[in-house]
Amino acid sequence: MSTQDRLDRGEVKLNSRRQNGVIQPLLTDLYQITMAYAYWRADKTKDTAVFDLFFRKNPFHGEFTIFAGLEECLKFLENFNYSDSDIEYLKDTLPTIDPEFFDFLRKLNADGITVWAIDEGSVVFPRVPLMRIEGPLIVAQLLETTLLTLVNYASLVATNAARYRLAAGKNVTLLEFGLRRAQGPDGGLSASKYAYLGGFDGTSNVLAGKLYQIPVRGTHAHAYISSFSDCEELKCRTMKHKETGEEQDFIEMCKNWKTELAPFFALMKEESSDGELAAFASYALAFPEAFVALVDTSGLLNFCAVAMALNDMGFIPKGIRIDSGDLAYLSTLSRATFERVATKYNLDWFRTLMIVASNDINEETIWSLNEQGHQIDCFGIGTHLVTCQRQPALGCVYKLVAINSTPKIKLSEDVEKVTMPGRKDVFRLYGGDGHALIDLLVQTGEPAPEIGSRVLCRHPFHESKRAWVNPAKVEPLYKMYWKDGKICEPLPQLVEIRQWVHESLKTLRQDHKRNLNPTPFKVAVSDRLYHFIHDLWLENAPIGELS
Amino acid sequence: MSTQDRLDRGEVKLNSRRQNGVIQPLLTDLYQITMAYAYWRADKTKDTAVFDLFFRKNPFHGEFTIFAGLEECLKFLENFNYSDSDIEYLKDTLPTIDPEFFDFLRKLNADGITVWAIDEGSVVFPRVPLMRIEGPLIVAQLLETTLLTLVNYASLVATNAARYRLAAGKNVTLLEFGLRRAQGPDGGLSASKYAYLGGFDGTSNVLAGKLYQIPVRGTHAHAYISSFSDCEELKCRTMKHKETGEEQDFIEMCKNWKTELAPFFALMKEESSDGELAAFASYALAFPEAFVALVDTSGLLNFCAVAMALNDMGFIPKGIRIDSGDLAYLSTLSRATFERVATKYNLDWFRTLMIVASNDINEETIWSLNEQGHQIDCFGIGTHLVTCQRQPALGCVYKLVAINSTPKIKLSEDVEKVTMPGRKDVFRLYGGDGHALIDLLVQTGEPAPEIGSRVLCRHPFHESKRAWVNPAKVEPLYKMYWKDGKICEPLPQLVEIRQWVHESLKTLRQDHKRNLNPTPFKVAVSDRLYHFIHDLWLENAPIGELS
Repeated sequence: MSTQDRLDRGEVKLNSRRQNGVIQPLLTDLYQITMAYAYWRADKTKDTAVFDLFFRKNPFHGEFTIFAGLEECLKFLENFNYSDSDIEYLKDTLPTIDPEFFDFLRKLNADGITVWAIDEGSVVFPRVPLMRIEGPLIVAQLLETTLLTLVNYASLVATNAARYRLAAGKNVTLLEFGLRRAQGPDGGLSASKYAYLGGFDGTSNVLAGKLYQIPVRGTHAHAYISSFSDCEELKCRTMKHKETGEEQDFIEMCKNWKTELAPFFALMKEESSDGELAAFASYALAFPEAFVALVDTSGLLNFCAVAMALNDMGFIPKGIRIDSGDLAYLSTLSRATFERVATKYNLDWFRTLMIVASNDINEETIWSLNEQGHQIDCFGIGTHLVTCQRQPALGCVYKLVAINSTPKIKLSEDVEKVTMPGRKDVFRLYGGDGHALIDLLVQTGEPAPEIGSRVLCRHPFHESKRAWVNPAKVEPLYKMYWKDGKICEPLPQLVEIRQWVHESLKTLRQDHKRNLNPTPFKVAVSDRLYHFIHDLWLENAPIGELS
Repeated sequence: MSTQDRLDRGEVKLNSRRQNGVIQPLLTDLYQITMAYAYWRADKTKDTAVFDLFFRKNPFHGEFTIFAGLEECLKFLENFNYSDSDIEYLKDTLPTIDPEFFDFLRKLNADGITVWAIDEGSVVFPRVPLMRIEGPLIVAQLLETTLLTLVNYASLVATNAARYRLAAGKNVTLLEFGLRRAQGPDGGLSASKYAYLGGFDGTSNVLAGKLYQIPVRGTHAHAYISSFSDCEELKCRTMKHKETGEEQDFIEMCKNWKTELAPFFALMKEESSDGELAAFASYALAFPEAFVALVDTSGLLNFCAVAMALNDMGFIPKGIRIDSGDLAYLSTLSRATFERVATKYNLDWFRTLMIVASNDINEETIWSLNEQGHQIDCFGIGTHLVTCQRQPALGCVYKLVAINSTPKIKLSEDVEKVTMPGRKDVFRLYGGDGHALIDLLVQTGEPAPEIGSRVLCRHPFHESKRAWVNPAKVEPLYKMYWKDGKICEPLPQLVEIRQWVHESLKTLRQDHKRNLNPTPFKVAVSDRLYHFIHDLWLENAPIGELS
């Protein structure tokens, strides 16, 4: 979806989200400051540079990544300026530095920087720069750490969330419950935001709800149940009927339903905790319209009793949450129970009560549950989602590719670590069926690939790997997002980026997205870029040793 | 070290660190709010509760954990109050809730809460509550998520850092370089803070340096080298001699030294990049007192040339950083080179130049380097430290153990998950050699164990596991940190907590701390608590099924 489309649809607002804390330019590595000083001392204040921000490997043994964090990067650029107290701190910390440098630093801003970037929420691949940062060497270098910090975790969590979505399918609700295990308070906030962006439906994190307008969800904890001993202790017992307003002793109704239903569960009612019934009943009194109960192994009877009492009062309960035990078995057992109750009392909604599961779930658990068969409508996912347990860091890097218009290549014994020199543009080529075929990196200034015209796509490092591609659609991936101190593309709302993730992933063939042995998506270079890289490589090859 | 000791030593200042952002009470799970409302509806506003905050398993396959995050918890309590905009948001989000509840919520604070806690920075063990939170049920419940968020990651990173310190030994400098890979901007800040607390010596994170007075360190990146092509481009070339003030062409001096040293390295000087020499020389011009160069495989000659030129100008360089390749080999090679130069030119300081290593290092790398032998003086550690790759979450939980003075037990099919009911105190018992022997949980009100008097220490769940312990020293682990709306213990400075981590770990026997198959530290219950737990367990045992 193009920005113009979004603008036309009236979905885009500029600079609409500023509630979040401003990222300070001191959130960086000290060596950025020391390098800035050394550059300044070396009279390189007029030097210009081009940096690429990219990663080398998709996370989670997968073959795709979701790019996220761009808006935060742009907000950071808008506010990029060292405060007086920053300068004071730096003066104290680096006492040998010429004080004049700090006057220079105090006046710096990102006005001279131009940022080209792929749309936030796009599916992206290794080696394709997500952002190209151009401008004064010193400023562009000073941005490195913060841009990496803002992109790395955001993209990692968004990708993780998108993978959970693929595993769970589109009809299951996914909720992020990870705040308590997140890496720091803001780790939790970022997790909630980018999990939503990646395809989750909501979060338990209230502050994230407030700051980012993400739907928030939650019921009650086990402690709520433990805090009730029996129904007799309940002081507030009456509920008004939804339609008639008639007030009745709701607790008695729950108890009666429990007696009636107990044989149905092949249980004596003594076998099911009275404290739990009190907890469920009191929770239903508070939320008659949205009753969800945390059901341990033995809580189904109490839940059904309260649900039937709610029904008598004109309300329809929502469902249950299971937080322990065998989720496949328990969800199936619960559904079967609901169906029996539905049939016996002729209450169709009972059949489709929501079953939420939330016990230390990861992507593998969901695949395994799918295989076993389950009746879960909603997963609440915490630790594994927010900490990205399987791979807790994405390795985005920020590499110098040109200085004063001279392309630079970084060589490495590890071919994968050789950088692609110079300013580059990226096109995504699509086949006739609408699926993305390949990402093609070209030198900036090369003619763009054309629809219906074959283009040679080469592996950047293996000479023999190349293919002619005849695209049915050509999409330039970069837009200029930042220039002359201003954001120059409209920034979509979070919910729009979330939709874009969905659409962007749809363009990817299924075999790139599957869980087991996914096919790598190809990233190629144009013939001209290929020769350019290899000529420069040769020129820079070490003398006197075999690399 | 007791607080009184710290007070006496004048090291403690109250409420001295408030620069950090205030944690808002909405940084919580929604179910805390919905439970609060259900409690309020059930007329449980006068109910009181006791919650234990603890973890069940040490992280990283280790047998100890460092408790961190307490100060942030206390600051959170000081500021615990829902703002008008919080209330507005909650009203919108939970529209079915009785508006009167929000008046109640608006007025809530933590004045009724009492917090007992173990000193921040202490070595702690599974099942021992790190904090005991007592007070109004609703408030104590509302604190859960935020307290967990503040303790979980802080303790995880502090423990990780302490483990790196044990691996590296006390003579190696440890620097945290993880900001760019951290989980969100604040994830990076928390990482820097708690890595320092756990035993690191500094960070690259400038904002963490500013906020927490942590030493910051850093040199330059590879991009700095790439941005220079040759020495001829350098416009600023002169340096003043440190003592005499005499100005000389420093670049020429570097080039001359390179020519002189080249045979020594069995290299033609053309084999070593002139751009790199320009980069090192310009960096030395900026930091003659603190020259550290990023030395790739072939950069030693250029480094030594610049180092000798600096020496001629009266300065002593610091050393090199190695960021790629075989660290054992390269550090040994570098040291050998330094020693040869030192001998040849009779410059002793050249022998002991600092060698920093920073290439994707984790705890295992350090153990392996120790085994191989290396010459590294300083490790810069990023991703693995800050994301705690080996285990990215600590599983602290917050469990209700008493309500209205009635102890509560949470049963589970998994014995490890059975909670220890009621208010408890904890004592650490020490042997005659000063080492900690065991942590003993007792019921609050039980007489404390006495020095020289044997006390029965029991495994909480295995009847046959018990032992008489005759302590040479008895240390009560809890202090009352919060009461009547005030912090009631002096809060040590970060650097003092860091020292306390060191001292606390020293009391632990070596076999508990070793990397391979460490011995678990014993956590026991008193005979009285043992019987109390098991009587209550029996009382609450399920009817009609074998657990």
